[in-house]
Amino acid sequence: MEKFYVEFIEENPKYIQLQMHIKKLIDKEEVEDGEKLPTIRALSKFLGVNNVTVVNAYKRLEIEGYAVQKMGSGTYAKRKLLGRCFRKEYNETFKKLSIEELRQSIDFSGESTSSSYFPVQDFKEILNEVLDRDGAEALMYQESLGYKGLRKEINKEFWSNELTLDDILIVSGAQQGIDIVAKSLINVNDNVIIERPTYNGAMMVFNWRRSNIFEIDMEEDGVSIEKLQEILKKNRIKCFYTMSYFQNPTGASYTIEKKKKILALAEKYDFYVLEDDYLSELIFDKNMEYKSFKSLDENNRVIYIKSFSKIFLPGIRIGYVITPRRFREIIQNSKIHTDISTSSLMQRALAMYIETGKWKSHIELLINEYKTRYCFMENYLREQLGDKVDFMSPGGGLNFFIKLKDSVKKDCKELFLRCRDRNVIITPGVMFFKNESEGIRYFRIGYSQTSIDKIKDGIDTIKDILEE
Amino acid sequence: MEKFYVEFIEENPKYIQLQMHIKKLIDKEEVEDGEKLPTIRALSKFLGVNNVTVVNAYKRLEIEGYAVQKMGSGTYAKRKLLGRCFRKEYNETFKKLSIEELRQSIDFSGESTSSSYFPVQDFKEILNEVLDRDGAEALMYQESLGYKGLRKEINKEFWSNELTLDDILIVSGAQQGIDIVAKSLINVNDNVIIERPTYNGAMMVFNWRRSNIFEIDMEEDGVSIEKLQEILKKNRIKCFYTMSYFQNPTGASYTIEKKKKILALAEKYDFYVLEDDYLSELIFDKNMEYKSFKSLDENNRVIYIKSFSKIFLPGIRIGYVITPRRFREIIQNSKIHTDISTSSLMQRALAMYIETGKWKSHIELLINEYKTRYCFMENYLREQLGDKVDFMSPGGGLNFFIKLKDSVKKDCKELFLRCRDRNVIITPGVMFFKNESEGIRYFRIGYSQTSIDKIKDGIDTIKDILEE
Repeated sequence: MEKFYVEFIEENPKYIQLQMHIKKLIDKEEVEDGEKLPTIRALSKFLGVNNVTVVNAYKRLEIEGYAVQKMGSGTYAKRKLLGRCFRKEYNETFKKLSIEELRQSIDFSGESTSSSYFPVQDFKEILNEVLDRDGAEALMYQESLGYKGLRKEINKEFWSNELTLDDILIVSGAQQGIDIVAKSLINVNDNVIIERPTYNGAMMVFNWRRSNIFEIDMEEDGVSIEKLQEILKKNRIKCFYTMSYFQNPTGASYTIEKKKKILALAEKYDFYVLEDDYLSELIFDKNMEYKSFKSLDENNRVIYIKSFSKIFLPGIRIGYVITPRRFREIIQNSKIHTDISTSSLMQRALAMYIETGKWKSHIELLINEYKTRYCFMENYLREQLGDKVDFMSPGGGLNFFIKLKDSVKKDCKELFLRCRDRNVIITPGVMFFKNESEGIRYFRIGYSQTSIDKIKDGIDTIKDILEE
Repeated sequence: MEKFYVEFIEENPKYIQLQMHIKKLIDKEEVEDGEKLPTIRALSKFLGVNNVTVVNAYKRLEIEGYAVQKMGSGTYAKRKLLGRCFRKEYNETFKKLSIEELRQSIDFSGESTSSSYFPVQDFKEILNEVLDRDGAEALMYQESLGYKGLRKEINKEFWSNELTLDDILIVSGAQQGIDIVAKSLINVNDNVIIERPTYNGAMMVFNWRRSNIFEIDMEEDGVSIEKLQEILKKNRIKCFYTMSYFQNPTGASYTIEKKKKILALAEKYDFYVLEDDYLSELIFDKNMEYKSFKSLDENNRVIYIKSFSKIFLPGIRIGYVITPRRFREIIQNSKIHTDISTSSLMQRALAMYIETGKWKSHIELLINEYKTRYCFMENYLREQLGDKVDFMSPGGGLNFFIKLKDSVKKDCKELFLRCRDRNVIITPGVMFFKNESEGIRYFRIGYSQTSIDKIKDGIDTIKDILEE
């Protein structure tokens, strides 16, 4: 209780001083995320103030998204995810590393395909062709849904022409897709379910919306239906954010059956599935079939977000969103007020790239190359680290998510720091958990930026460090 | 009071049913924006419910940003700006017009320089040079602040190397600049001051943040200092959004003296000036000097947003933000969680375009061309419409903002619709006012997309219609 003590000054209303004080405690992590705040009675007695002062302070905290009131239970602190120490250190590491240094390291942290595979010459020719064909037009604002030619190609290539073109909204990458959908649908204190662990960039967006985040543990084939039902029975949920293939970071993919069950629950409990399809092109396992939530959706319950950045090239900043019609206008407006439109030239270039069949052959090349690395890494991991770690084989994607066995004394923060000193960059598990401490035994390593040789050297180094 | 009647059903808590009902009334505009809601006593009596039911319903409305409580005065409705009828019709008009049709019309609605001036060939050569020089690098993610080479050129060309490079954050256009700054600084129910009338896209962003918007009328040299002070004395203001040159839509520019006064108030009352510098390059009046709020800012009170889209080319989607250091990290994070980074290729191309001096000569060309159109339009407007309208001469920019004299019987909605039927596109004043009705006597016409001949024909048509 001591930490809640406020030395009131005369000038400002007491409830504002109290509110500011608690806000500071939350920001400084002296009050934990999810910690129950003192009861109104206890705090007003402790501070020697009127009940109403505390009621008003709590109310203002709630309005600003720093607290959430649970009926019949009390008021709980809610924290912004920013500014945690280790995450900061991790981010600082990256800011300090130049692209050059990263290239000289063994970089297991990559999340998108390597630039060395990128067909610069092809793409340059296409850019020139587009500019010759369209002139200044290619550099003007685009229609707000995005360049029609690109929407046509997307519909043809990826959706067998089953969509209407107005269903497709071009966005500047999947991150923007998540941001504009969140801005459209999620209000302060709306309830959102995420997978645990999950993609940090999505967590941040939901947190910035100051929504209430529920987490469900990932299993080998997605979240548990029972746990999902438990939450749905007790809470009014707005949406469920999921990566259906090679979930980041676990690498898990949902079975078709599980997807169908989740869609049925979405209809029953009136929530939406926000599907982030970021890497489904890279399926190496012949037994895996590609069927998105969206393709199984009979009741307009899915908002589908597709990125071209991970698989094609990050700098192109293009993705698309397919939304149920009832959200179309609001999401479209949200896009306009976010950045008006996505680069017209890049949209046209990508359309031509798909149209000429270059996209397809590029993906085939990538599957071949990455499958080789995947198999090597999987085998070498089992051989060298099998006694120290557990992991599952995703059957595709670009990463393995690894858990240190209990017998290992180091945790992933230490492993990250020691690796960094030896020029090996891994991604510590804490990056993917709302509560950092839950990720302390995990790390993610990927092969997108590392040749077979480098994979070998990197894993040897990790082994070395774990055996120290 | 009748409209507040709710037929309660058993299943849900009454306060939620009441809240949903009032939300609907606000969305449907059956309760006006700013309308006072019934007192708790009166409404609970009318509905035959407990006081607490109404209190809780109002509280939830406030949390969701649908209402605002003014101490000692009561609770007031707050509406999303979306979905007003005439604005919708205006937007629909644009959605229906293809780029081709717009080109065949007399388009007075343009907000950025014409594509016919755009140096496609030069730009194409630069794209090729960049790709030859940087290869796939030019297409990877950029450092989160943006391409260093571009930040260097900006500092050199526009800020006499007085900034440090870390002060500059590259964004995907000014709209994104406004969006990420708003997301970083403005919380639900924070107070924001805007100019009346103002840019619709900014109003939308503040509204989506569900902030409380205060308006101050624009005068010939910016907002009135007295009115600004009045608001500051009574309210805790977070920021003031302003366009310092050729304000959109009025065309007014702030005097240096007024800028200094506003900056002094910002320091005194602890608020921030959000400066949208979207068109200051186009100064035609020899007596006007370019001095941004930012350049006069001694106390780190200015967040400066610059667009390259209006003046250079819309499709390039590049702008930049300069923020006081204390906000740097949060705004930078906001950018990352909005779309990770801005197109790397375009940043590199723009850097080279500035570096080679092409930017400078392009702007000189534009000033020449547009000054001719500006002078013609100014004279022809006075000659032909002098007895029907009032307007001021901005001395630069791309638009005139025009007020119908009281003697004119038509309003701007009618004028817009009649003009549209005759292939002349004007922007009705209602687009720029929070309360549509205040803009009913105004319209904006610009010369960015219209040759001298078309300007003449268009004004003749407007004259015709007003004389009907």
